[in-house]
Amino acid sequence: MTAPEFAARSALADAIAWIDGHVPRLAAEEIALAKAAGRVLAQELRAATALPPSDRAALDGIALRAEETSGAGAYSPVSFRAATADASAPPPFSAVPVSAGGPLPPWADAVVAIDQVQPDASGGWEIIEGTAAASGVAAAGSHVRRDATLMPAGRELGPGDIALLAAAGIARLSAIRRPGVHCFLLRPANASDGFVDASVPLLQGLMRRDGIVGISRQVIARSRAAIANALSRGAPDLIVTVGGTGRGETDEAAAALREVGQLALHGIAISPGETAGLGLTAAGVPVVLLPGALAACFWAYELLAGRAIRRRGGRNPEWPYPAREMVLARKLVSSIGVTEICGVRRVDDRSVEPVASFAEAGIGALTRADGFVVLPEGSEGGAEGSRVTVYFFRP
Amino acid sequence: MTAPEFAARSALADAIAWIDGHVPRLAAEEIALAKAAGRVLAQELRAATALPPSDRAALDGIALRAEETSGAGAYSPVSFRAATADASAPPPFSAVPVSAGGPLPPWADAVVAIDQVQPDASGGWEIIEGTAAASGVAAAGSHVRRDATLMPAGRELGPGDIALLAAAGIARLSAIRRPGVHCFLLRPANASDGFVDASVPLLQGLMRRDGIVGISRQVIARSRAAIANALSRGAPDLIVTVGGTGRGETDEAAAALREVGQLALHGIAISPGETAGLGLTAAGVPVVLLPGALAACFWAYELLAGRAIRRRGGRNPEWPYPAREMVLARKLVSSIGVTEICGVRRVDDRSVEPVASFAEAGIGALTRADGFVVLPEGSEGGAEGSRVTVYFFRP
Repeated sequence: MTAPEFAARSALADAIAWIDGHVPRLAAEEIALAKAAGRVLAQELRAATALPPSDRAALDGIALRAEETSGAGAYSPVSFRAATADASAPPPFSAVPVSAGGPLPPWADAVVAIDQVQPDASGGWEIIEGTAAASGVAAAGSHVRRDATLMPAGRELGPGDIALLAAAGIARLSAIRRPGVHCFLLRPANASDGFVDASVPLLQGLMRRDGIVGISRQVIARSRAAIANALSRGAPDLIVTVGGTGRGETDEAAAALREVGQLALHGIAISPGETAGLGLTAAGVPVVLLPGALAACFWAYELLAGRAIRRRGGRNPEWPYPAREMVLARKLVSSIGVTEICGVRRVDDRSVEPVASFAEAGIGALTRADGFVVLPEGSEGGAEGSRVTVYFFRP
Repeated sequence: MTAPEFAARSALADAIAWIDGHVPRLAAEEIALAKAAGRVLAQELRAATALPPSDRAALDGIALRAEETSGAGAYSPVSFRAATADASAPPPFSAVPVSAGGPLPPWADAVVAIDQVQPDASGGWEIIEGTAAASGVAAAGSHVRRDATLMPAGRELGPGDIALLAAAGIARLSAIRRPGVHCFLLRPANASDGFVDASVPLLQGLMRRDGIVGISRQVIARSRAAIANALSRGAPDLIVTVGGTGRGETDEAAAALREVGQLALHGIAISPGETAGLGLTAAGVPVVLLPGALAACFWAYELLAGRAIRRRGGRNPEWPYPAREMVLARKLVSSIGVTEICGVRRVDDRSVEPVASFAEAGIGALTRADGFVVLPEGSEGGAEGSRVTVYFFRP
């Protein structure tokens, strides 16, 4: 299969440079911590309270004054009597039961684990080993100091992060706004009224992964006027069109964008996906023109649109696929002059073999691929035994 | 900080073996493809139709009979006239414009790219290079043969998978049911009525990642009767309790489970998280007892509960964190006899340094950690320069 040859097909590196230069990060908004899972921090966060906020028991046991345990041993136990929990200055050799994480009475400075003491008949305990001050205690601020940096700007908040912020007294925070995307599906010439393409669930899944707040999706006619009109409506954070990017008679996506804005690049040296385009509407909204064929749509999204959406939302622009250095168990052939995506299958812990180029097998390459390799423009492929970076579809 | 020493603390490997032996996969249910993103296939899927279903143009161009281009050259162009798209047997030297992915007329057997032909004044084209039959054509079944295996049972469906299934004519499929979890939060002795712990957003985020359908969450009193009652209610797929697992006076979670079911393990050699427990209710529902302290709750979830939930939902039981072999830039010390989780910070592309053990710094270890290492029971840590597997919190 050969690609339509565009007059001046851009290198992938130039397309990426265009995205990085023309797709700015959205502004911040203040949100409640309860809504912050998966969001991106707009500002560094500092601890509003120390952690723990006061001295705490680090384990289940009895709190006491460490110096009073001095000299305790198996043959010379020291007895402690139970003090009431709220006693402010109990007599010498007093102790009080505490739970891990619970507050330490102000007069106590150590906690002895419950299974290292011997309860006695009077409701007290015998200690058979001396302990040191601060032992069994999580001191105030020992986990996080007050005003310490909790996490830097740009952090994508995971479940542990949210818990840390809750514990550190953060109730609201400033997060990058999530991009809202307009997606226009160009109806193929012979499609029925109820036409919904397989690219719809594909793009919904990918955009959700990349942190969009929502997609407004519409099927539009494959005419220059209809596309131009769609590109000019509303104020989305990004526009994606699907289909009509090629050299066929009804391929009007690029021409429509040129008419109502700026067509920056059309024809990019990627395979599949070579008919993709990039540009801006008159209002400055970034537009990604995706090809209609499923595999081309998939890879043009992954190579271009996904990066644009992640940048817009302040996320790491790089691929969210786990990457690993592996060895090619069989030779892999690639055309020079185009960045090619080839599906690979895991052979064993160290090696992969090519299953099919997505350009040749379309979305069908997914049937046997565990992941993929990216063969850059200058590459003719890789010899058996050579090392490649494999991106895996699943961890 | 020392851990409460349980009479017989189980090895992590035994806890994992118990989970693998006692937490069965849920049954399958039939769902629509539109709802299948992120779900787990219960059965292998085969293609209901071939892909492409019929011969298609692989590129934008003109469809023609390849043999009629024989002898064409820059100095001996061959002229083709435009046939109507629905002509069933047009005269020799006819051609018709086709779009990439569009059907090929039955009389044509090749497609020449639009930018490799020369339009002429009569609405036809001049061909200046011969082409071979099947060139520029994606033959029926060349991407996926009818009845070919599309994907195996157990596959977690990504966006590309859904698109492939849509293209291959799959409208409904059989997926493993998603686990519904009951989560009981044991109210600490001195908590207010409106008590909500930081463990709630933590567990919600983690369980969502692990594919649950929903959590029924309830704060209950820290008494054996209240816990026993909670464990006996309803028919969830899994129960998680938070708090009350230690040796303190109000630590009744394990005793309550022993009362109304089977306490299989209590006290596991993990740090943090050593007071966690595992068991079954009388009705056979798997129960994970999580410690209340935030870091202990986090890691007992990751080491035990997460695996149980992923197994229940038919998912890969292994951690969803990307793992990489890295070098220790500084010595890391660990206690023997316990599986310890230590936060590490990325120093450069190849190496990490320890920042804090989660047992020492609690959830505060997240402030500086990019990921973590797992130091197994038999390990005393690692020397500077030694290789460790690092699990990264973010890709």
